[in-house]
Amino acid sequence: MLDVVTRTEAEKIIEENFGRYTLPAETAELSAAAGRVLMQDIVSREDLPAFNRSTVDGYALIAADTFGCSESIPAMLSFAGAVEMGKHFCGEIKSGQCVYVPTGGEVPEPCDAVVMIEYAQNYNDGLRYIEKAAAPGENIIFKCDEAVIGQTIVKEGTLITSKITGTLAALGYDRVKVRHRPVVGVISTGDELVKITEVPAPGQIRDVNSFSLSAAIEECGALSRSYGIIKDDFKALETAVAAACDECDIVIVSGGSSVGEKDFTAEILQKKAGSPLLFHGVSLKPGKPTICADASGKALFGLPGHPLAAFFICEILIKPLILKLSGIQKNPVVRDAVLSSAIPSNHGREEIVPVKLNGGIAEPIFTKSSLITVLAKADGYIFVPRDKEGMSAGDKTEVYLFAEEK
Amino acid sequence: MLDVVTRTEAEKIIEENFGRYTLPAETAELSAAAGRVLMQDIVSREDLPAFNRSTVDGYALIAADTFGCSESIPAMLSFAGAVEMGKHFCGEIKSGQCVYVPTGGEVPEPCDAVVMIEYAQNYNDGLRYIEKAAAPGENIIFKCDEAVIGQTIVKEGTLITSKITGTLAALGYDRVKVRHRPVVGVISTGDELVKITEVPAPGQIRDVNSFSLSAAIEECGALSRSYGIIKDDFKALETAVAAACDECDIVIVSGGSSVGEKDFTAEILQKKAGSPLLFHGVSLKPGKPTICADASGKALFGLPGHPLAAFFICEILIKPLILKLSGIQKNPVVRDAVLSSAIPSNHGREEIVPVKLNGGIAEPIFTKSSLITVLAKADGYIFVPRDKEGMSAGDKTEVYLFAEEK
Repeated sequence: MLDVVTRTEAEKIIEENFGRYTLPAETAELSAAAGRVLMQDIVSREDLPAFNRSTVDGYALIAADTFGCSESIPAMLSFAGAVEMGKHFCGEIKSGQCVYVPTGGEVPEPCDAVVMIEYAQNYNDGLRYIEKAAAPGENIIFKCDEAVIGQTIVKEGTLITSKITGTLAALGYDRVKVRHRPVVGVISTGDELVKITEVPAPGQIRDVNSFSLSAAIEECGALSRSYGIIKDDFKALETAVAAACDECDIVIVSGGSSVGEKDFTAEILQKKAGSPLLFHGVSLKPGKPTICADASGKALFGLPGHPLAAFFICEILIKPLILKLSGIQKNPVVRDAVLSSAIPSNHGREEIVPVKLNGGIAEPIFTKSSLITVLAKADGYIFVPRDKEGMSAGDKTEVYLFAEEK
Repeated sequence: MLDVVTRTEAEKIIEENFGRYTLPAETAELSAAAGRVLMQDIVSREDLPAFNRSTVDGYALIAADTFGCSESIPAMLSFAGAVEMGKHFCGEIKSGQCVYVPTGGEVPEPCDAVVMIEYAQNYNDGLRYIEKAAAPGENIIFKCDEAVIGQTIVKEGTLITSKITGTLAALGYDRVKVRHRPVVGVISTGDELVKITEVPAPGQIRDVNSFSLSAAIEECGALSRSYGIIKDDFKALETAVAAACDECDIVIVSGGSSVGEKDFTAEILQKKAGSPLLFHGVSLKPGKPTICADASGKALFGLPGHPLAAFFICEILIKPLILKLSGIQKNPVVRDAVLSSAIPSNHGREEIVPVKLNGGIAEPIFTKSSLITVLAKADGYIFVPRDKEGMSAGDKTEVYLFAEEK
């Protein structure tokens, strides 16, 4: 019999034992840094912008020169030239003068406002007739508005998404220090497993878990490394686990996690860890024969071979750890819902039931634990508490949604 | 002056003109198919499973042989051998017999139930003493429970996520037909632009948009192709647009979209389209000088050079088109919130205001339209309606959240 922990206990054990596992930094090109977590503060190495910049096409001028002007009494300013895009304006501007500036162009000192071109008349007499008073600062981004030299603009630990990329580009960071992605090894074990390209003979089954676990791992931004199918052979599985443990940050073995004759996973993971298993068995249906061991700080998991059970245990217990190691703070997306129909039984274990979500109605999809195809119909899943005799139609519940995109 | 449309009008024009642009199919390896959209129905090519399978370690038997048995009056069944994992059991089973089956092993005919090993005693007398009655079907996945030959299990148009990957693997689909990702060309134009590795001289600015637009494009699963920085030169920009139009499904030019002296974008896009612009100007702040043209079904966009404006127009008008072409149904994530402080003004245009979201409180981040660094502080943005004189503290609003991960 297994020494079983609850889901909450399992979560706590995983968090306490592996939550402080640290991944090194590496350098990423900015163009390939999306989805990565910064391992440096982004500090401005200059004043940005380095000059006062116009946000419109118009005339740079001294705001005070326009006070009180209007369409009927325009302010007459002498035209002192035009600023070219990307070039510094070398002339000197005095009160009573104005300079044409394109959007994004430099506003020369001592100008402190820009009047949009549509509010200035040009009668080709060397003057511009300004028909609207400007407030000081109008239509100008001032020097240092973005950043002052030495200022921290983005903090270490920030996840780089498109909204951050622009800031990094603006500050001239074409390469950034990011956290290494966790590498998760995936081993499928079982004499009954065949490659997915094969048609299973009687008694055989395709190796679903190598694919669904790898997809789940990559969905949370980590790297998966598949070790293929290992037969129910102690030595072969031990060798694969040792290799995976060397090369990966987390190792998942699916299959052989129960207590049958050829179930070597627990023994091998314990041997590799060199210490007792952290748990063997989680009070969850499906997913009971789940194993966790600590190999010098690396998490080793044994999951049931049943594809649906393996998928859910990865989703519920392993994905949060992967995100934690990655430095990504992301909570499960949960929706309140009402059950459309009763869920009978349960078996003294907390039960995971896939559901379809229609508006606020959760429709349970009843299934046996190794039917993987039900996932294609489900939007998420609910937990039926272990201390309840099932649930009734109309009961309130929380639906954990599956990630809908990469 | 620009001929301006509202945001809703712009959305409608884009949807009507480009919503039916079709992308071809290509073949993807299952291990690299996550995030792609299926362009074929996934039909089962066999019965799955092809045999009755046990979900536990136990004894396969004929349920009727156990009816009425209990711990005190066990059913005594003759032990007829053991099923090996992955192998077909060749013996014949009759009423009164039982066979050991490991989890996942074949349940031989005519057995219709499996009793878990803990409910069977073995006194080494050639019998097994079954202490718990089994219901027909108990602990068995029957042949065809997953799929019947010819059955459609996943429909064309489905986005492949980890929950789908397992089903495709189970059905033996190691390669699938998926929709080509849209390729989006990104051109930055402006004499003031320098590479992000350079320190801008007075009047210059780094080419932020090549990076932030590419990141935004890839965040929704499309491919970006950067054409670098093009100077404000009609011929050079025309050549770049022509190349991008040949090689991409959507083309974005940022910069030169206004009506200044060197703003060639509108003219070039119109020339390339060979027909009037669909719009030139959207009543949005920031983002007014936005251009849209139709080049034989391909969308050409001209965006303001201001990084924040370009980012928002991409987010609001272009991302939905990219997702549509990709075949991905994904609505913006919107949260109800209450404004923490008043937003003064507006200018007869709908206004986009970046906000920080604290619980249900949206805190506006006030900024000038070309400050890109505010995005790093924002969780999302709100729209201030054009027909309102700003908004008041305590007003209800909807916050559009930024994508937080790749």
